[in-house]
Amino acid sequence: MATLKDVAKAAGLSVGTVSRVLNNRGYISDETRQSVYAAMERLNYQPNEVARSLSKQKSNTIGLIMPSIEHPYFAKLISCLERAAYEQEYKVLLFCAYGIDDQEKKFVEACRSNRVAGLIICSDTVRTQTFNNLGFPLVSYERYLDSSDACVLCDNHEGGRMAAQELIAKGCRRIGCLSGTSRVGLPADTRKEGFLEACRQQEIETVELDFPPERTVDSGYYPDILEFLKRNEGIDGLFCGSDVIAAEAIQAAVELGISVPDRMKIIGYDDTLLSELTMPKITTIHQPVKEMAEMCIDLIDKKNNGDFVPARTIFHVSLVSRGTA
Amino acid sequence: MATLKDVAKAAGLSVGTVSRVLNNRGYISDETRQSVYAAMERLNYQPNEVARSLSKQKSNTIGLIMPSIEHPYFAKLISCLERAAYEQEYKVLLFCAYGIDDQEKKFVEACRSNRVAGLIICSDTVRTQTFNNLGFPLVSYERYLDSSDACVLCDNHEGGRMAAQELIAKGCRRIGCLSGTSRVGLPADTRKEGFLEACRQQEIETVELDFPPERTVDSGYYPDILEFLKRNEGIDGLFCGSDVIAAEAIQAAVELGISVPDRMKIIGYDDTLLSELTMPKITTIHQPVKEMAEMCIDLIDKKNNGDFVPARTIFHVSLVSRGTA
Repeated sequence: MATLKDVAKAAGLSVGTVSRVLNNRGYISDETRQSVYAAMERLNYQPNEVARSLSKQKSNTIGLIMPSIEHPYFAKLISCLERAAYEQEYKVLLFCAYGIDDQEKKFVEACRSNRVAGLIICSDTVRTQTFNNLGFPLVSYERYLDSSDACVLCDNHEGGRMAAQELIAKGCRRIGCLSGTSRVGLPADTRKEGFLEACRQQEIETVELDFPPERTVDSGYYPDILEFLKRNEGIDGLFCGSDVIAAEAIQAAVELGISVPDRMKIIGYDDTLLSELTMPKITTIHQPVKEMAEMCIDLIDKKNNGDFVPARTIFHVSLVSRGTA
Repeated sequence: MATLKDVAKAAGLSVGTVSRVLNNRGYISDETRQSVYAAMERLNYQPNEVARSLSKQKSNTIGLIMPSIEHPYFAKLISCLERAAYEQEYKVLLFCAYGIDDQEKKFVEACRSNRVAGLIICSDTVRTQTFNNLGFPLVSYERYLDSSDACVLCDNHEGGRMAAQELIAKGCRRIGCLSGTSRVGLPADTRKEGFLEACRQQEIETVELDFPPERTVDSGYYPDILEFLKRNEGIDGLFCGSDVIAAEAIQAAVELGISVPDRMKIIGYDDTLLSELTMPKITTIHQPVKEMAEMCIDLIDKKNNGDFVPARTIFHVSLVSRGTA
């Protein structure tokens, strides 16, 4: 089998230059890169990342354990994490646990046995003790996790306040708050708290709809929202815990002949691609997912370098005005 | 460091049983599984997948190279591939190349140096020669690729015909066809061919809008669609190359005061989550993505076992009637 030396010789370059091309380090001209690739192809050279990982007892792979891939929010998050990882020369091992405790546990073990450089987890159910003695940095995303090295989240409370203030400023006087119920306490739960607090301070009436835990993006929220709007007449504003819920709220409003935003204003949460594809487009709370994803990767890097990492890093959110409010 | 034997001893089980738990093979009672996990935790046992991969010169990882993660179609596809891989005891290494040739090349090299068990690629630009002598099975998804071992795709031509027949049956007499233009020939291009053929056979007038190659889900298709509908009055039906395009077509129709489906019917393609979140919901052509994803994993398995694999595996599509047609 061809070695690195053979490739260097065939390309007429030093071993150091070939190594820089392979590891994508430092400046390499396109011409040099192409001649290395050509030599590799001629010789059928196969660098062995596996051997390197074994000798270093650490791979350049980061594990992601997510509750969903298809949900527009997680699709965006995974996209941003893959990109941030790529820019820091990491690869991404993707696991979807669907909020099932047993699968999360298996995936954590898989990360361990694959000697990942770090793990980013967005878990709904996992128990704290799963995460002792992992041997690599653990970053929890929008989750409180005692055993994580660092937690990255957005200021959910601020997002809730912002949504309330916008709806009130636009004239809403009886506002519905639609949100999921988590089996464990999630940072996202404080969206509702911030929202209710802001409404209380301005003496605005609120009506709450908490979806049962079994409701997901797959089952849909539509029948609950329809029933809620029928039961509570005169609602002129809705704060929705996600853009998906907001999209289904638009559907329910149209079904009931309630014009959006004229008779009822709607604000979503997340600022996903979906918020631009409904009619009207969804006014929503923007989470800086790109920056949050980059922070996750940075924190793993820092922790592996022995640097100090903060327990929680919280990002500001912002309001994106579109068509529903 | 604790060994497999230590774990077996601590759990009071045979090494074979512990190995079956770790490899998730055969029937294991919950009780046995828990006692193995407990022993592993007590001893801080870390199985080494990396060493196993090195000795076998093959990992149990499958590489995915996709052009997008956030696009609803690819979010669904990646979700199905992760699940199909998990069920066959593979892990998934996810790369997003955004259709950039140089990145695809790098990712193929990364898969090679990580000794993946196989690679599933959905590439827009990659050149054939990149894929010689990979040393692992290559499955192309919805792409023609001379050097791939197998290609998995849906019957795009059939999908186009189906959409035309449905629109004509619903009374459309002047139908617009909105589709992207690929820089390379894609199987998806035959959607349009099937559509135009069926319209021609029934002597139905068609008007085409081909989006320029730089239009993506990020830039959006809305201004082009708006302009197209203004320029071509009396269009009473639209066949859209994806659900994303269909969602933007709904937006453009509402903007122009054209009621959907009364005055204009719209049929999308893909049957993604998005098609259920617009108002009206999108009537669309369903691709059996779950089954196609399972086939990709099966083909890699078969090829690795030395079994014969067909060059192309083509899946039937079906019409899903929702609100737009």
